[in-house]
Amino acid sequence: MAYPEKVYLNGEIKDAHDAKISVFDRGFIFGDGIYEVIANINGRLFYYDAHLDRLKDGLKKINIEFDTSSLPKAIDALISASNLKGQDYMLYIQITRGVAPRKHAYPETAIPTVMMFAFPKTLPDNNEVNAQVITRNDFRWSRCDIKMTSLLGNVMLNDEAKQHDCYETIMHRNGVFTEGSHCNLFFVKNGTVFTHPADEFILNGITRIAVLELCKSLNIEVKETPIKTTDLLNVDEAFLTGTTVQIASIQQIDDHILYTENKKGSVTKKLQEAFLKLKYTVTPL
Amino acid sequence: MAYPEKVYLNGEIKDAHDAKISVFDRGFIFGDGIYEVIANINGRLFYYDAHLDRLKDGLKKINIEFDTSSLPKAIDALISASNLKGQDYMLYIQITRGVAPRKHAYPETAIPTVMMFAFPKTLPDNNEVNAQVITRNDFRWSRCDIKMTSLLGNVMLNDEAKQHDCYETIMHRNGVFTEGSHCNLFFVKNGTVFTHPADEFILNGITRIAVLELCKSLNIEVKETPIKTTDLLNVDEAFLTGTTVQIASIQQIDDHILYTENKKGSVTKKLQEAFLKLKYTVTPL
Repeated sequence: MAYPEKVYLNGEIKDAHDAKISVFDRGFIFGDGIYEVIANINGRLFYYDAHLDRLKDGLKKINIEFDTSSLPKAIDALISASNLKGQDYMLYIQITRGVAPRKHAYPETAIPTVMMFAFPKTLPDNNEVNAQVITRNDFRWSRCDIKMTSLLGNVMLNDEAKQHDCYETIMHRNGVFTEGSHCNLFFVKNGTVFTHPADEFILNGITRIAVLELCKSLNIEVKETPIKTTDLLNVDEAFLTGTTVQIASIQQIDDHILYTENKKGSVTKKLQEAFLKLKYTVTPL
Repeated sequence: MAYPEKVYLNGEIKDAHDAKISVFDRGFIFGDGIYEVIANINGRLFYYDAHLDRLKDGLKKINIEFDTSSLPKAIDALISASNLKGQDYMLYIQITRGVAPRKHAYPETAIPTVMMFAFPKTLPDNNEVNAQVITRNDFRWSRCDIKMTSLLGNVMLNDEAKQHDCYETIMHRNGVFTEGSHCNLFFVKNGTVFTHPADEFILNGITRIAVLELCKSLNIEVKETPIKTTDLLNVDEAFLTGTTVQIASIQQIDDHILYTENKKGSVTKKLQEAFLKLKYTVTPL
């Protein structure tokens, strides 16, 4: 990925290389912000309302007061300026607590910083990767439900995957699998889909929500119960979900091979097919 | 605290309001950076070498390649431009992984961003606060040994103290006390000083190190063993340490009152006196 052409910053559209914030922005000093990544597919922002709800929820959880009703107009201006109208693209939204002298506690008067950019991206119909993943201890904080920009833990874990030529790092905490460094994690065992419940140990991904809905409509049994690390050898399938990742079949977990060549599990395949249909027909949540 | 006058940014001295970084700085997007706060006392940066060693250690832990040998000259230029020569001041240093298109894993080519500022500050001889603190579950990550800028957890915990008109939030994890949101935590019981060992659950504060050295020279027994939350009612004294906090006596922990009025424990007092002497006579570590 290269830089986008334009950046929306606090009401202005800037050339990307001119988009600058104060070094006293709490996003820079404290990682004190929230973000979303949304895919524009076939002429509309996929699950926009769900993303917006999560954004609002995150802002509330960390006490940033910001009226999101201004966003649609701002997004429209950004997309026009970026010459992305009518194209598929990825939209990144970041809201920080704003600029203030450095002091940990929330400042009384800061005005939130809003930064957005978009770049052209057509997601493949299905993610055809046969993902190899590594497993690591989940050493992140216990509020993974907040989609914050204090992401150093995720960054370190994601980089480890890269060092191992792997697609992702999946994590376990207290003996159970949680999620990946930038996507959610599912397993299939005897036809039942398992994933960690949406508590404070994982981010409740929008694609995760969509996949759970698809399971329901396809009469696939779901258990929002985490898989134990000791149960890994008994799972039949595993896959990752995320906005950019979509649904990615996991082929290998550390040394444990689930599939060879381009094979993937039947439930994973069924969900990928249903997800593809959803992308072109869904009424967003 | 207000803004400082000047900011050092990547080799340049800027007026604080002109000091701006790219929105693509990974410090802004990912909280992907390291920082230090150092006090200049009586004409020299207190424990500079220890701070520098920790900075280097942090950079190494998160794989940021940066040659710190350029820092002394840069600090000197900043302090001159800030008209702080000969004054007491606080120096803030932040190094991020630099500017790159947004992607979790470490970029191959980013040049680290170096940002520093200083502001006049004369620390009191002793911190005379009688701190009231609240206790909270330590929900931060398990790599608190890294002094990173992904600080949202600390920010949330610190703000809670403020909401309760308290000086600090002290935390416990797995049934034992760890540290405060921005300082270390000590207890005294039957004349022995207790503090959490410097493992991955706390930041090994420079003032913490200095206090442990002082205990040794004062023949005060030290146990780097955490105090259990269930043992709180049995402690005789408690205090906080940090670069700005110095040594702060804790008067009250939640509803548990250790002291009233301006009283403080004898060990706390002895350490404060020794620390004051250290500030004016120490050969830094």
